[in-house]
Amino acid sequence: MVKIDYTSVMAETIGERDGILREELLSFRHFISDIHSRIQREKENRFFFTKLPYQDTSEIKEYADYIRSEFDYFVLVGIGGSSLGAQMLFESLTWLNHNSFNYPKFYVLDNVDPEKFEAIMEKVELEKTCFNIVTKSGSTVETIANFSIILDLLKQNFGEEYKKHLIFTTDPEKGFLRKFGNENGIKMFDIPPKVGGRFSVLSPVGLLPAAVLGIDVDKLLQGAKKMDLICSIEEHVEHNPAYLIAIVHYLANMRRGKTIAVMMPYSERLSAFVDWWRQLWAESLGKDGLGQTPVKALGTVDQHSQIQLYRDGIRDKIITFIQVENFERNLKIPESIPDEISYLRNHTLGEIMNKELLGTKAALIKSKIPNLTITLDEINPYNIGMLIYLYEFATGFSGYLYKINPFDQPAVEEGKNFTYALMGREGYQHKLEEFRELYREKYKLEIQ
Amino acid sequence: MVKIDYTSVMAETIGERDGILREELLSFRHFISDIHSRIQREKENRFFFTKLPYQDTSEIKEYADYIRSEFDYFVLVGIGGSSLGAQMLFESLTWLNHNSFNYPKFYVLDNVDPEKFEAIMEKVELEKTCFNIVTKSGSTVETIANFSIILDLLKQNFGEEYKKHLIFTTDPEKGFLRKFGNENGIKMFDIPPKVGGRFSVLSPVGLLPAAVLGIDVDKLLQGAKKMDLICSIEEHVEHNPAYLIAIVHYLANMRRGKTIAVMMPYSERLSAFVDWWRQLWAESLGKDGLGQTPVKALGTVDQHSQIQLYRDGIRDKIITFIQVENFERNLKIPESIPDEISYLRNHTLGEIMNKELLGTKAALIKSKIPNLTITLDEINPYNIGMLIYLYEFATGFSGYLYKINPFDQPAVEEGKNFTYALMGREGYQHKLEEFRELYREKYKLEIQ
Repeated sequence: MVKIDYTSVMAETIGERDGILREELLSFRHFISDIHSRIQREKENRFFFTKLPYQDTSEIKEYADYIRSEFDYFVLVGIGGSSLGAQMLFESLTWLNHNSFNYPKFYVLDNVDPEKFEAIMEKVELEKTCFNIVTKSGSTVETIANFSIILDLLKQNFGEEYKKHLIFTTDPEKGFLRKFGNENGIKMFDIPPKVGGRFSVLSPVGLLPAAVLGIDVDKLLQGAKKMDLICSIEEHVEHNPAYLIAIVHYLANMRRGKTIAVMMPYSERLSAFVDWWRQLWAESLGKDGLGQTPVKALGTVDQHSQIQLYRDGIRDKIITFIQVENFERNLKIPESIPDEISYLRNHTLGEIMNKELLGTKAALIKSKIPNLTITLDEINPYNIGMLIYLYEFATGFSGYLYKINPFDQPAVEEGKNFTYALMGREGYQHKLEEFRELYREKYKLEIQ
Repeated sequence: MVKIDYTSVMAETIGERDGILREELLSFRHFISDIHSRIQREKENRFFFTKLPYQDTSEIKEYADYIRSEFDYFVLVGIGGSSLGAQMLFESLTWLNHNSFNYPKFYVLDNVDPEKFEAIMEKVELEKTCFNIVTKSGSTVETIANFSIILDLLKQNFGEEYKKHLIFTTDPEKGFLRKFGNENGIKMFDIPPKVGGRFSVLSPVGLLPAAVLGIDVDKLLQGAKKMDLICSIEEHVEHNPAYLIAIVHYLANMRRGKTIAVMMPYSERLSAFVDWWRQLWAESLGKDGLGQTPVKALGTVDQHSQIQLYRDGIRDKIITFIQVENFERNLKIPESIPDEISYLRNHTLGEIMNKELLGTKAALIKSKIPNLTITLDEINPYNIGMLIYLYEFATGFSGYLYKINPFDQPAVEEGKNFTYALMGREGYQHKLEEFRELYREKYKLEIQ
């Protein structure tokens, strides 16, 4: 079950300066109707991610079983859209201590930080490790740099047997990785060409690692399918959860100046869900001077770090709480505690979490800060599948509200090109000249 | 060595719409002089954290040695200012895999998430575990809730010997924890009453865990001392790093509309430094409708998640990169890599990290996004001590620029009081009525 309570974004609750009028929500009727038809027409193109819940998972599950039987360590080498989804599924749908007590142990090598590389390599036994190299383009610098060192290590240790330790997840035709895989007979999974990295978690990019970790990927897709059915049929903003989330954030941004969207789950396991959402929201909508800045927070921890600012700082935020009704494990405060703290007696830690969420929410309402709560009855593959699809659909729809293309990321290339130039890559000499014009070190202060 | 390069926040580099004029920096001369004298006068009061670098660490080191010899696990139970500093010292100054290969293993129990509680308890052997309960007030709900369960566990297992497994770090006189400690003969360390949680990392709050982890706390304080000497003497904004950072951010915020301060280290080990800074910046300056929202990012990972937004979304950001010149370990891309990716040949991963930082920086300059770079020659206790003190001093100084009190957090209480009311704590009945008036669940959407 996924429940959205948006009472506290409404003007009725927090006033019209910060809150949204019901009439504003409803006034989008015709606009929604247009976008709704457009999305239906684009399901084979831009909105291809809507097809993913209906895919056949048998090859993924079969190969995952083979990996589980052959390997003790599964290392995903990928970054951004190639890693955030799998990391999110891992953290939310396996036990927090998975790697302490279960096999295969799972690690994500995203960064090119050499210390992180070494730290992961220290923890695995190479002969029992499967590396899943994930890059849509097949040429992502960080991924290919890490891969090149891993490839060398594997060849040194196992000769031609190195191939057994590799799986590529990449474009079905294009790119260096596909070519290398074809030439050397590496096992490969396809990323559908029309699905961008940040919308790819329900493709083999996320599903293969999930299946290797023993997560029920069919339940995950079942949740996504359920959400697809509702989002694809309902045109009424109050009945379509994706349109509701999109329009509430859009109105908060464009009409109430809420340029920051905070997501604050009260559950450690959902921490990585926010990282996944941050990319989705920022890269899809942050263009043309528009979009909101997504900000990650975690309850209860950030009550002691960010709530002062959220209540009493700049009034530029809309906050989404995520509540979990039932924790997988729970603990009761013992009867025997000292009298001074007797108010804790008979509460569980889970209850305290949820009462802190309510207390924080009330304090925000009192300060007229718009906020909504998404409640899951529990964290399970079905609910996470719903939540993933909900935010993907809301993001795609939002792009059309903002009149931008939510599926591209034109501003990302520039930095890559400068990096290539600095690394001396052929064909990038002109960028080196441009770099030298732009980059100066004139104002400096050094303390030894 | 700590180096600040602020060339790219200057109008000279990115233009006057987004960049700062040197005249603006210099125009603060008299204002700085006033605040400078005020800080000198307040070193025994509000700015008491400036005394911490000069403390005697012998008791801390001695007791840390005892803990290291007696225990295999050290669990810090604390939240916010009581945990973020120690977590930061742990992540930045021990090896990433510390807990895999070294003793004592270190865990932080901050949240009341029951799953996190259970996950940590699964990993420790109770008879070899020392719990450091850290709370300034001695009554923080989350910390006391977790403590009450731990206390019960210890008593059940060890009877009166439970005391050996506990250390309290709390106010020297006030609060439940101090009283309990006094009555039961628990080992305690003092938090100086004039030092608030978020400025307490260089007190026993951070130093005891650091010493237990084998970090050289004297070198840490030596770095802080060095920074104190410079910050306390220099009045010229171009020579005082704390004033420089404060004024650059203040001008960016108040005169250029940069309401978001991003901190983006290119080093996994500095990730927790940003969490520590987030609290410092948000809770100190986010009041009275003022202050910037601190946002955490991590290079290179967030190039694939947030850079699209930073370059082409709302122009409301100033970005601080943190660069590490020399990584503790490094790796070279092998000669043998395929020709298609030959541009990687002969580079180290560390070089790629730093070239990506430069490439990203150039792309931001091209988009006229103000950014500065703080460079450390390496991550070591001396440099981290400098960096901690630099940001503490910059934050305190910033408060006086904004004409607010940087040392209080008045907006935090409200949520706590509502939570107490919801838990049925005596004396909070009136808050329950207020809660019922504020909180409604009227607008909802549920998907099964």
